This record gives sequence, C-alpha cells and structure tokens, in this order.
Amino acid sequence: MFYAIDILGTIAFAISGVLVALSKRMDPFGILIIATVTAVGGGTLRDVLIGETPVSWMLNLNYIYVILVSTVLTIIFKTKIDYLRKSLFLFDTIGIGLYTVVGVEKGITAGLNPIICIALGTMSACFGGVIRDILCNEIPVIFRKEIYATACILGGLTYFLVRKLPIDNNVVFIIAGLVVITVRLLAVRFKVTLPSLYK
Amino acid sequence: MFYAIDILGTIAFAISGVLVALSKRMDPFGILIIATVTAVGGGTLRDVLIGETPVSWMLNLNYIYVILVSTVLTIIFKTKIDYLRKSLFLFDTIGIGLYTVVGVEKGITAGLNPIICIALGTMSACFGGVIRDILCNEIPVIFRKEIYATACILGGLTYFLVRKLPIDNNVVFIIAGLVVITVRLLAVRFKVTLPSLYK
Amino acid sequence: MFYAIDILGTIAFAISGVLVALSKRMDPFGILIIATVTAVGGGTLRDVLIGETPVSWMLNLNYIYVILVSTVLTIIFKTKIDYLRKSLFLFDTIGIGLYTVVGVEKGITAGLNPIICIALGTMSACFGGVIRDILCNEIPVIFRKEIYATACILGGLTYFLVRKLPIDNNVVFIIAGLVVITVRLLAVRFKVTLPSLYK
Repeated sequence: MFYAIDILGTIAFAISGVLVALSKRMDPFGILIIATVTAVGGGTLRDVLIGETPVSWMLNLNYIYVILVSTVLTIIFKTKIDYLRKSLFLFDTIGIGLYTVVGVEKGITAGLNPIICIALGTMSACFGGVIRDILCNEIPVIFRKEIYATACILGGLTYFLVRKLPIDNNVVFIIAGLVVITVRLLAVRFKVTLPSLYK
Repeated sequence: MFYAIDILGTIAFAISGVLVALSKRMDPFGILIIATVTAVGGGTLRDVLIGETPVSWMLNLNYIYVILVSTVLTIIFKTKIDYLRKSLFLFDTIGIGLYTVVGVEKGITAGLNPIICIALGTMSACFGGVIRDILCNEIPVIFRKEIYATACILGGLTYFLVRKLPIDNNVVFIIAGLVVITVRLLAVRFKVTLPSLYK
Repeated sequence: MFYAIDILGTIAFAISGVLVALSKRMDPFGILIIATVTAVGGGTLRDVLIGETPVSWMLNLNYIYVILVSTVLTIIFKTKIDYLRKSLFLFDTIGIGLYTVVGVEKGITAGLNPIICIALGTMSACFGGVIRDILCNEIPVIFRKEIYATACILGGLTYFLVRKLPIDNNVVFIIAGLVVITVRLLAVRFKVTLPSLYK
C-alpha cells in the first residue's frame, strides 16, 4: 500500500513539474527533465548527502517509467488537467507526507541524529520543487509562501515522539505521515502562511 | 585518439563557458569557474550520482590544465573568436558525442540498467551547459531549443542496439558517437528543433 | 581556538544568508534554509565531490545549532544589525581564511594533487555564497566583484609553499589562513577588484 501511495506522489510531483515547464515554453526534452527532477530531486539530494549511491531511482526503474508516462499524458491532456487540480493537490500532499517519513527512516538507518533525520525527511519532500524552480529561473516557491516544509518538520518531530511509545513501526510511519498531510490540508484550507519578515 | 578528441571537446566546452561568462560581465575568476563547470559539470554530476568519488577531474589534472589554458587564450583573443565559430561548433559536437558514450560506459561498468546508462550519457554531455546557464541566471538553453539532448539519447540507444552485434567494443563506441554527431549536425544544418508545446 | 573561530565564521556566513533572504521577502523557513546553505554549502559540495559522506554537518550538530540561533537572533535584531557590519565583515573574512585551510587539508588527507586541494579550499570558502545567490535568483556576487576567491587561492598556494619549510603544521595552517585574511582586508581597504573583461 505504501508503494502505491509512493507512485501517486511521484505522479503528482511529475505533473507539477510538467505544468511549470510548459508555462516556461520548454521543449519536450526540457519538460521531461523538469518532471524528473521535481519527482526525484529531493530524494536524490538526500541520497548524495548521506552517501547512498547509486541514488535510488537508478536502481528502481519504476520511478522513471511512472514519470515518463505521467509526462506524456500531461502534455497530451494539458487542457483537461485543470479538472484534476483538486486530486493533484491531494496526491501531492500525500506524496510529501510519504516522502518525509521515508527520508526520516533513511536517516535513522544511516545512524544519524534525529534533527538531521528530520532535515533529511524535509529535504526529500521539498527539494524536488526547489530544484524545479531553480532550473526554471524562479526563486523557489516554498521559500516564500505556503506551509509546506513546516508540515514536514512537524511530521518528522511527530515520528520521533511517537516511536518512543510501545507501538508498531508501521503505525509510527502512518501517524507521522498523517500529521504532515493534515497540517498541510488545514493550512491550505484556512489560508495559513508563514509571515514574510521583510518590512 | 579518443583521448585527443576528449581534449578537443573539453576545449570547446570551456570556450563556450568563457563566452557566456564574458557576456555577463564576470571577472576573471568568475569566467574560470564558468569555463570549468561547463567543461566538467556534466561528468561531475554523473560521478556523484553513481558514487564514483573523488570525481574524475580531481584525479586526472589534464582537464584542469586544458581548461586553464583555453580560458586564458579565449580572454586574450576574444575579438578573434568569431572566426573560429564553425570549428568550435564542430569540436563541441564531437565533444558531446564522446561524452555521451563515455557516460553510457560508466553506467555499464556500474552495473546499471540501459535506460539509466543512456540517462547518464546524456547527463555527461548536457549538464555542464545546464549548470553554466543556472550560474549565469538563465533558463538552460537546452531545455528550450536545439536538438542536443535528443542526439545524445539516440546515440545511447544506438550503443545498446549495436553492441548486441558480434563486433568489437571500440567499433560500438565509434558508431554510437557518430550517431550523436550526425544527428546534431543534420539538425542544425536543416534547422530542426523540438516544438514548444506551449499554446 | 581554531574551533571557536570556525564557529565565528559559521555565524558570519549564516547572518549574511539571513540578510539576503530577508531582502528577498522570504518566509522564516526560506530564511533558515538560505542561512544554512550559506554557512555549510561550500563544505558540503567539497565533501560530496571527494566522497566524504555523510557530509560533515550531519555528523557534528554544533553547526546546525549555531546557524539556528544566529538566524533567530538576526531576524529579531535585524534593524540593529547595521551596527555590527564591521564585526560581521571581520568574522566573515576570518571564516573564509579558516574554511580555505580546512578545505586544503581535507584534500591532502584524500591524497589529492595540490592544485585540486587549493580548488577544494576555495570551494569550501566561497560556494556557500554561490549557492545562496543561486537560490535567491542572482548571479553569484563573487563571480562579478570583490577579491574573495583570489584571496583563497593565494592562501592555498601559501599553504603548499610554507609547508616545505621545517615548521609545525599548526603554524603552516595559521600562516596560510592569515594570508587569506590579509589579502581580503587589504583588497577591501584599498578597493582593489578584478577587472571586468567585458567591453
């Protein structure tokens, strides 16, 4: 089940990359690259920083296949994609929940401090979008608005709090992921953003 | 012989970096950095992602020497460089042909799937220019026009098709490289580009 | 003592990141990320390129704590920070002196050629600022003005010249660091810059 959700997250991330790339008038190759870095960029950075190479999408080709199909379908049906905006937002939110917890667990496996694990989880979930925005010559959107990284950080904290309880590891995984998802959904629903500190 | 071509490719990439950096009014240090990342950036990213570190230009200093000399000469003779535009284009094209096949073979040595090997070859050939454009605050040119990555992908595919034939590995190398070079030369000659999908 | 200076350098780099991020109207999370990459980005790139992973700030949490506190205090006292401009400049200069020599020594430990070691030292000191500027959608400032990288390169050269003398390694370290600091202070004092070669 986790695996199916992972794929949904990858699809949502890839589609968001395609939409940004289209708006920048990129050619099909550029669109595919942007879709790929959006979907796997965060996890790639995480793997490189902890030294787990070759990075994971090179060893499990399903990500590449899913990104390829998502990109082609999004390009073909781009005028229809607006109808899917709500589903996409949901996939994307589920995706960051899942990516966060996967990143946290990779950090634990590498024997790193909880603070670093939470940073790795947040990085996995958020940096695909950061690299997408840099390649498209924009200041990364998550640095300026939206409760996004904050949701990941709260989910990561939850993971370490809950795992001290005598419960199964899969349950810890689910609870932490749900915290990320819930915080993000509530923040968007009630239009909560972090304040800009510039005056 | 391959080695001499490799050096020609490095020279062409370094010069293209110097020309972009000059147009951005960078100082000599900035120009040298841009020349270096253009020439070795793609291979560096490839090495980091597959975990082959220290990256190759740290172990073979010839790249650095060639880049240094190319940068100084290009700065001195920059008003004359226009006369070389055709030779440079040829070097550059030969360079991407060679870099593509070298990247594909590195992937094979690392035991990776052919699709990933082709991605690594394309990355080796194209991402130096991508990093150059990002450092110069431009949307990477290969995402918007020119058959460039497409030529690399076709060359990589050719590599895997041809190597099933009972022929020497060096011949496979040459054929795949020639496909990259031919596709790019023909595309530029007949002004073929990938269509922008934005409407 | 070196350690205390290292912390001063990290503080100065983090504060410079916060100030740039504030001017770009980023939210608190974005500011923290920019502060972090400015402070640890150069060393992270160095570690990744030579294959020393997990990268150093993941193993020694003091950097993260220092960055966190510096960021919060800078945001709170941002209207007062102008009074500190001179101290900050001094910290920053001491920081690059120290980062340069640390980078050079990491290269030596990895058995790399002196030229590559000097490149690693310069990278450690300068690339945090480069990544900061890219994330903020600016052409990196060190590519356009200021004797900054040049000071690091001269310090690196000094390191290799002086270490041939029969003196203690710590003294070599200090002399090379002082060269970086002195060159930078003199360059800023007398407004020496590298010329732009664009005409």
